[in-house]
Amino acid sequence: MKHTKDLLNEQYRTILTRYLQNKSEQGLYQAEQLSKQLLEQKVSPEELVSLHRTVLSDLFPSLSKDVQDSFEFLLEVMVGYGLAYREHQSLRDRQQ
Amino acid sequence: MKHTKDLLNEQYRTILTRYLQNKSEQGLYQAEQLSKQLLEQKVSPEELVSLHRTVLSDLFPSLSKDVQDSFEFLLEVMVGYGLAYREHQSLRDRQQ
Repeated sequence: MKHTKDLLNEQYRTILTRYLQNKSEQGLYQAEQLSKQLLEQKVSPEELVSLHRTVLSDLFPSLSKDVQDSFEFLLEVMVGYGLAYREHQSLRDRQQ
Repeated sequence: MKHTKDLLNEQYRTILTRYLQNKSEQGLYQAEQLSKQLLEQKVSPEELVSLHRTVLSDLFPSLSKDVQDSFEFLLEVMVGYGLAYREHQSLRDRQQ
């Protein structure tokens, strides 16, 4: 059986791919909905950026090295946000 | 006088541009340091993704429309993380 995170990753890939094909508002709505599930499953913001980079690289094999490397940079910044986010979860859990 | 957020935006642009030129570990270290300042100034994760997209579009005017649009999607997902992050700030402020 697949892990929930793996399923969410696949869903992200599917919805993003479809969005890039038709650029519909519905795709953005689905992104918003998926966001809630990703948060529930404690997917960190840096994991999200990493997933986005992977899907883009797969969809566009000719994606320039610079654009790919720029994600490395964004990831590094997002790690700080991930720490704040995990602190948030532990604060919230303590209040419950 | 420039707003602190504007200065941070410029710093992000400068450090990312330099990183893409030399791909040094030091650039990633600077990204990590900048992350702390961005958090202090309450820059949300979706603002960060938006800033990253703007810098990339400026650096690479030939960046494909698909890659640019993919950021629209990532932004939408990040909005959910931004909400969680602001909730974190208000929880933390209440505990202080």
